[in-house]
Amino acid sequence: MNKPYQIIVSRSKSIEDYVLEIIEALNHNTEEVEIKGSGWDINKVADIYNSVKEKLKDGVTLDYITIGSETKDRRRISYLLLRIKRAY
Amino acid sequence: MNKPYQIIVSRSKSIEDYVLEIIEALNHNTEEVEIKGSGWDINKVADIYNSVKEKLKDGVTLDYITIGSETKDRRRISYLLLRIKRAY
Repeated sequence: MNKPYQIIVSRSKSIEDYVLEIIEALNHNTEEVEIKGSGWDINKVADIYNSVKEKLKDGVTLDYITIGSETKDRRRISYLLLRIKRAY
Repeated sequence: MNKPYQIIVSRSKSIEDYVLEIIEALNHNTEEVEIKGSGWDINKVADIYNSVKEKLKDGVTLDYITIGSETKDRRRISYLLLRIKRAY
C-alpha cells in the first residue's frame, strides 16, 4: 500500500478543488487520503469531507479523526486531521 | 449515568467561557460532555477541546468525534461533534 496522499487545506484553493483532487487521488494513486487544516481552515476540512462523502458515498470510509494543536509563529493553533480510505 | 451535558458552540461566548462551563459540568453534574459547532464555529470546537485537554490532561478522554452536515435556513452546513468523558 502506498503512503497516504496528504492534503494541507489552505485558503488558496476552493472546497471544490480539494474535493476533485481527493477523488482524483483515490481513483489513481492511493487508497488513503489525509486531510489536515489549522485554525480557520478547520471548518473547510469538515466541508471537504462532507462533500467527498456525498459524492462517493460508501466508496469511502472515514478511518480516523484527530484534534490536536501545534505551534506556528509562536502561537498555539488547533488543527483537525482526518484520514479517508477508499472502500472499493 | 446522567445524559451527556450538551454544548452548542456559538459566537456569543468565548472559548474560555466554554472551557470553564465544561470543567464545571464535569466536576459537578455529569460524566460526559458533548460539544457541537457548525460552520465557522467548528474551529472553536477544536480550540475548546484542546484547551480543556490542556487543563485536565488525563482527567478527560475523547470518546468520539463525528463530522456531519445538516440543513439550516435551506443551506447545508457542516458540523463537528465530539464527546469527552471524565476519566476520574
